[in-house]
Amino acid sequence: MKTMGLSKLVLVRPKYFPDAQADAMATGAVDILAGARVVDSLAQALSGTISATALTARRRELATPPRWARQAAAEMIAETALGEVALVFGNETAGLSNDEVSLCRHWALIPTSPNYHSLNLAQAVQILAYELRLAAGEVGAPPRVADAGKPASHDEVEGLMAHLERAAVASGFLDPAQPKRLILRMRRLFSRAGLEHEEVAILRGMLSSFEVKN
Amino acid sequence: MKTMGLSKLVLVRPKYFPDAQADAMATGAVDILAGARVVDSLAQALSGTISATALTARRRELATPPRWARQAAAEMIAETALGEVALVFGNETAGLSNDEVSLCRHWALIPTSPNYHSLNLAQAVQILAYELRLAAGEVGAPPRVADAGKPASHDEVEGLMAHLERAAVASGFLDPAQPKRLILRMRRLFSRAGLEHEEVAILRGMLSSFEVKN
Repeated sequence: MKTMGLSKLVLVRPKYFPDAQADAMATGAVDILAGARVVDSLAQALSGTISATALTARRRELATPPRWARQAAAEMIAETALGEVALVFGNETAGLSNDEVSLCRHWALIPTSPNYHSLNLAQAVQILAYELRLAAGEVGAPPRVADAGKPASHDEVEGLMAHLERAAVASGFLDPAQPKRLILRMRRLFSRAGLEHEEVAILRGMLSSFEVKN
Repeated sequence: MKTMGLSKLVLVRPKYFPDAQADAMATGAVDILAGARVVDSLAQALSGTISATALTARRRELATPPRWARQAAAEMIAETALGEVALVFGNETAGLSNDEVSLCRHWALIPTSPNYHSLNLAQAVQILAYELRLAAGEVGAPPRVADAGKPASHDEVEGLMAHLERAAVASGFLDPAQPKRLILRMRRLFSRAGLEHEEVAILRGMLSSFEVKN
């Protein structure tokens, strides 16, 4: 929960709470457990919310049509504009009862392999929390690599290509009458890689060292 | 892994393997453990693959620019057209070394809260496996609810609206000179819900019972 930016936990009749083992496993997220609200029923847990989404793999009678987790998360985030929304999970062994699911407006499912669909509670919670974080749009571009270099300019790339051609002709590797294909291949390779300023300098330095030897 | 349709597990120098506790925790997925290949190095594990993606939260020098898990999964699936691809995780405590990451073409990250980004290995694996399943396009429409009813036809909905208006006028709830707003509200409500054939029958039966009493 905490890794995905969620902080509000409500527990319905937990067997043990507070619990030393749970605290130990929570490591840096003990604050979530310490701030958890404990209630007697799911109805109490949902009091004050405007919409609840139940995660359940079991087929349900008289439930709303199910949504996949990704769409359910997007719909939940949209509903947050209108009030507080809840995501409801059953316990590891029994899951949610039909009565509990009937208190929830929505029903979400995680797509799993038809051959094996028993997902642990912790895994299911993680996937939904992850989808909520992405649906909330709180994820920008991936972090920049500290040493990600300045991209090479067009002129630098062209300088490298000319240098490469010169060196390959001088070494006898390239027929000066038919230089095109090799240079095209090299352009393709470097285009895919996206050359950096410093890499062009390294490559040209290396080319120069080869030229001296030839 | 198995819940998301993945089956090929390679373990690099596992501390204990095979291991009774791991088997017990795997429950219905013991076949994945039984079929795991055990090797001495990541280089051996990657032999025969055409591309590897490392999951690591640590900033890396000289690595390729990172991708978020969702994009990385899409790129991995695209690469499967060319050969076998690998997803590489470090162990729970030490993660991946720089040397190990350097064997991988790609580097993926899971977006987490800036306040708390320590995701367990099992949780990270689950998210990536889930994204791979979705990226592979193996997920169709959500399953149909067994008792999902036949949608009501246009004529059935119109019949209900006329019935409702008639009953509300007869009961005195509705001013026959100004029926519009109430009916518009009711149309809006039932549009959002998407009426089913059987529901129209139930509602009309209920309306008829009210009409008798008035």
